[in-house]
Amino acid sequence: MQSSIRVPGFSGSSVASGIKSGGGRDLSLIFSKVPARAAGVFTTNRFKAAPVILDMERIKRGIAQAVVVNSGNANAATGTEGDKDAATMSKVVSEALDIEDELVLVASTGIIGQKLPIEMIVRSIEPLVEGLNADGISSFAEGIITTDRFLKIEHQRCFVGGKEVTICGIAKGAGMIEPNMATMLSFILTDADIDHGCLNSVFKESADRSFNAITVDGCMSTNDTAIMLANGVAGNSLITENSGNLLEFKEALSGVMDSLARSIVKDGEGATKLIEIIVEGAKVVADARKIAYAIANSNLVKTAFFGEDPNWGRIISAAGSTGIPFSTDSLELYIEDVPLFIHGMGTSGIQAASIMKMDNIRVLVRLGMGKETFRVYTSDLSHEYVEINALYHS
Amino acid sequence: MQSSIRVPGFSGSSVASGIKSGGGRDLSLIFSKVPARAAGVFTTNRFKAAPVILDMERIKRGIAQAVVVNSGNANAATGTEGDKDAATMSKVVSEALDIEDELVLVASTGIIGQKLPIEMIVRSIEPLVEGLNADGISSFAEGIITTDRFLKIEHQRCFVGGKEVTICGIAKGAGMIEPNMATMLSFILTDADIDHGCLNSVFKESADRSFNAITVDGCMSTNDTAIMLANGVAGNSLITENSGNLLEFKEALSGVMDSLARSIVKDGEGATKLIEIIVEGAKVVADARKIAYAIANSNLVKTAFFGEDPNWGRIISAAGSTGIPFSTDSLELYIEDVPLFIHGMGTSGIQAASIMKMDNIRVLVRLGMGKETFRVYTSDLSHEYVEINALYHS
Repeated sequence: MQSSIRVPGFSGSSVASGIKSGGGRDLSLIFSKVPARAAGVFTTNRFKAAPVILDMERIKRGIAQAVVVNSGNANAATGTEGDKDAATMSKVVSEALDIEDELVLVASTGIIGQKLPIEMIVRSIEPLVEGLNADGISSFAEGIITTDRFLKIEHQRCFVGGKEVTICGIAKGAGMIEPNMATMLSFILTDADIDHGCLNSVFKESADRSFNAITVDGCMSTNDTAIMLANGVAGNSLITENSGNLLEFKEALSGVMDSLARSIVKDGEGATKLIEIIVEGAKVVADARKIAYAIANSNLVKTAFFGEDPNWGRIISAAGSTGIPFSTDSLELYIEDVPLFIHGMGTSGIQAASIMKMDNIRVLVRLGMGKETFRVYTSDLSHEYVEINALYHS
Repeated sequence: MQSSIRVPGFSGSSVASGIKSGGGRDLSLIFSKVPARAAGVFTTNRFKAAPVILDMERIKRGIAQAVVVNSGNANAATGTEGDKDAATMSKVVSEALDIEDELVLVASTGIIGQKLPIEMIVRSIEPLVEGLNADGISSFAEGIITTDRFLKIEHQRCFVGGKEVTICGIAKGAGMIEPNMATMLSFILTDADIDHGCLNSVFKESADRSFNAITVDGCMSTNDTAIMLANGVAGNSLITENSGNLLEFKEALSGVMDSLARSIVKDGEGATKLIEIIVEGAKVVADARKIAYAIANSNLVKTAFFGEDPNWGRIISAAGSTGIPFSTDSLELYIEDVPLFIHGMGTSGIQAASIMKMDNIRVLVRLGMGKETFRVYTSDLSHEYVEINALYHS
C-alpha cells in the first residue's frame, strides 16, 4: 500500500458529506485533466443499483473524465427516485468541473433500499471539487470504503515503448464478495495511451482472473462496479491488440488487479486468512471453476480454516458435491506441498497442522480428468464475520 | 418427540462400543421380526462412504430386516479397508440375529477418513442384539446422533382400510444439511403392508419435499442415507399405487418426514431460528428452487436472521444473483404477512422487526413470472455455528 502514489493527469479528493453517521469521508472524486478512454465491468445481479444502470449506459461511449462515489448508501432498490438522484449527482459534478455531464460516472456503496440523501451530496460537491489534487488518490480511496479495515491501493510502473507509464488500482471490498464482483468497487487509473478496444479486452480478461475469481461469502451485490480510465498523458506509442508493447502493460495491469483482489479477500469481513483454491486437471474450465467455488464457499471448509484444522474430508466432500464426475481414486489434494488425500485415502498429513497456522494458504486439488485449471481466492469464516453481519442493521 | 413410541414388529437397541471418546452410545440396531419391504435414498456426493455403497446395492432387492448404525466415525474415504469393515459389520450382525447377511443395511456417521475401529464394533454386536426390545426405538435414536442437541423421533398413526398403522421416523441431523440430505441419517419404520413399487415412489417423493428441501450450511455429505422399512405386520389391505388407501398413508408419511426435516434444520449447528423460504410464481420449479436455495444459503441473509434484522436488501439481492430472469418491479417479498418489498421499492416494514424475534419465520418471495413454487427450510448463522465447526477437529 502506498499513500502518496500519483498517476499523471489524475487528481483525487474526498469529503464527509454526512451520509455516514460517524462523520467519516463518504463522498469521493477522481478527475482526469483530459477525457480518458474508459472500460467497465458491472454486477450481473438482477437488481442493479441506479448508478450501475447509469454507468452501463455511459461507458458504451468508451470515454469518461470523472468518477464520483458515495459510500454509506447504495442507492439500490430506490425506484425512479434513485435514478434521478444518480443523475443529479453526475450533473452537479459535471457543472462544478465544467465538463460534459456524460463524462461523469457514478458509484454508490452502502445500505440498500434507503433514499440517497441527495441534498447532503449536492451541498458537498463544491468542497469536493475544490479539494482535488494530484496526491488525492489515497483520499479518494479513504472515502469509498465502508466496513473495510484497510485502504486498498496498488500500483505498478512499466515501460511501454520507452515511456514509463503508471497503473494504479483503488478498491473497496469487504463482505458479499463473489464472482461477478459483489459489493466491490474498483477503479483502475493509468496514464497509458491505449486503444479503446484493446483497453476493453485486457480489462475484462484481467477482471475475470482477479475480481471475478474471489469470494468471501458467496453473495453478489447490486452495486459492483469496476472502472478503468486511461488518459494517455504518458505519451507512449498507442497500445493496440497487435502492438508489441501490449504484453508488458497487460502483465502490470494483471499484477495490480491480482493484488487488489487478494487484498479484498484478505479484508473480507472477519477474515483471518487468505486461501487460494486451485483446481487442476479438469476436462473443461467450467468444471474446475464449479469445484473451486464449491470448496471456496463451503462454510464447513471455511470454519475448518478458521480453526486451523487440515480437515481434508470437508474439502473433498465439497468437491464431490458438485455433480461433476471424476474418479475419487484419482483425486489428489494438497495443502501447500503436503499431500492430504491420494489414491482414494487420506494421509497422516502431520506437517499440514503447522501450515494451517499461516496467513496465506494454498489448496491444490488435482482431478486427473484433463488439462483445465481454475483458481479462486477465498477467506475463512470467523466469529467476527457473524458479528459484523448480524449487527449491521438495515 | 416421543420416547416410548412402538412400531409393531420392530425392536431397537443401542450400546456404547467405544468409538465415541466420551463413552456415549454409538452403535445402534433396528430389527424387524419379519423381512420388511425396503426403499432408500442416498447421497449424490461423488465420495460415497463404504456403507452407502453397500446399501445402494442391497436396497435394489427391495427387502431388508435390520439396520446397524455407528456414530463417531463415517467410514468414508477409507479405501478398500472401509468396504471390508462395512461388510464385516453387516456379517456379524446377521450372524447374531440369525438372518441372511443381505438383509442387513449399514450406516455410519462421524469423522471422515479414519479407519473404522471394527474390533470395538464386532465386540459390541452381541450386547447390542441382546438389548433389542420393542421400546428400544428411542435408544436407537440416541445412539445415532453426533452433534445433535436433541433426539429426533416423529410418528403418526393412520387408518388404512380400517386397520391402524404406525409410521415412525428417526433422524440424525445437525451441520452439513443440504439438498440431497447431507450428513443426515433417517430411518422410517412402518408396520403397514405396502407394495414395493408404491413404497419406493411415495418415499422418494416425500424425501424430495422434506429431506431434499432443507439446508443448514450448503454442504452435502458422503454418508447421507434415508431408509424406509415396511414390515406389513399391521395386516392392512395391501397399499398399491392404485388403491384408495394410498392417500391417507402418504399424507401421514409426508407429515412425519416434514416434521423430521424441520426438526433437523432447527437443530442445525448453532441454529437459533427455523426459516421457511417459499418462492412462488416461477416459470419452472427449477427456477423457484434455485432462488429459494440462493436465499437459504446466503450467509448475509442467515446472519441477518441471527441479528433479527428484516434486511430485505440481502434477500432480494440473493434472489437477483442467480441469473434467473424476473422483473425487479414485479418481485414481492413478505416476511410472514408483512410486505417488505413491492413495486420495485422497499417498504418501511416496521412490523417485521417484531416478527424477526420469533423462532419460526416464513419468507415469501413472489416472482410474478409463472405458477411454480418451491419451499426450503433453512436456519440462521450464529456464533455457535462457527464455534462448533472451527473446534471440531479432524
